[in-house]
Amino acid sequence: MADRQSLILEAAVRVIARNGVRGLRVEELASEAGVSTALIYYHFKDRAGLIQRTLAFISDRATGYTDEALDDSEDARGVLLQLLLSELQDTTRVRENSIAWGELRASAIFDTDLRETLADSTRTWNRDTADSIMDAQVAGLADPRAVPLDVAERLTALVEGLSERWLSGSLALDRARDLIAGALDAELGTHPGK
Amino acid sequence: MADRQSLILEAAVRVIARNGVRGLRVEELASEAGVSTALIYYHFKDRAGLIQRTLAFISDRATGYTDEALDDSEDARGVLLQLLLSELQDTTRVRENSIAWGELRASAIFDTDLRETLADSTRTWNRDTADSIMDAQVAGLADPRAVPLDVAERLTALVEGLSERWLSGSLALDRARDLIAGALDAELGTHPGK
Repeated sequence: MADRQSLILEAAVRVIARNGVRGLRVEELASEAGVSTALIYYHFKDRAGLIQRTLAFISDRATGYTDEALDDSEDARGVLLQLLLSELQDTTRVRENSIAWGELRASAIFDTDLRETLADSTRTWNRDTADSIMDAQVAGLADPRAVPLDVAERLTALVEGLSERWLSGSLALDRARDLIAGALDAELGTHPGK
Repeated sequence: MADRQSLILEAAVRVIARNGVRGLRVEELASEAGVSTALIYYHFKDRAGLIQRTLAFISDRATGYTDEALDDSEDARGVLLQLLLSELQDTTRVRENSIAWGELRASAIFDTDLRETLADSTRTWNRDTADSIMDAQVAGLADPRAVPLDVAERLTALVEGLSERWLSGSLALDRARDLIAGALDAELGTHPGK
């Protein structure tokens, strides 16, 4: 991706995290990114195109920081836990990404154009998580009777639910992280390697 | 509560479910409810007061329809499942309520005034669910080692996460309901009474 496009998309995530997706104006984004509105229209066609590309960008970026969160010394079960917990970290990048993701999720209820991209990103997240669950099962670190895609869909939906509670001030971050670890134990049995 | 106040609050839920909380204008609400804007300001002081009262109303109304969903013939474990599933029904009332709840959750990220009421409602929901889990444990229908408040907080956050996915078109309703039933089995052991 061209550098200027990334710059614009990064700025779009910041603006959405600050004002919500419905508050996103191309003029404000241009000022945030330090580019002209013409350049934004050139790269993204219109506001709808921009928002769709921002959604895909948020999803890719999340994959990036979950990969970064991985510690090579972890076993397959630990990797799965780290993947889930990487969405619940008090860093500017994770906060911005999570707020923007939640905003796009909430907006898709009213704006049907967003739904397909959002469903695709959700499906990818579920599949990646299911792969991680299967790795843990193969390594003998997770109940072999658990159905990977069912467990994955529950765990990622739980991460979304807890993340929204954290960001909206109904839940402390440490408690959210503990609840995720507990969900993993309930779904896959307690970690036999620990 | 006076009838006219209920009428206004019901109309507020409809308007929020249609346009989002950030699209809620007092003029539009007055027209939807068939009252004057002066009456709305008289009962709710200002837009912020109106939104807070709407949030409390949504929460009370959810308690109402979850109570309605209960079948007297169910055992304590069945009651718990019905309570959770009552939030995932394809009726106008549940859809409106869930959309409005999700909207208020998402808005509280930007609007700190909403946070206290939202945290209170969330706490009440978690406690009611924990009580239901304890009933199932006392009846021998749930793993006695499960920590009721932890399980309750996970199950209600999962309901919120799945509900948002359903409403935003990323998940079929039947699948969402199956995933809730599966979560209950994972958290509390399969239902020994069935």
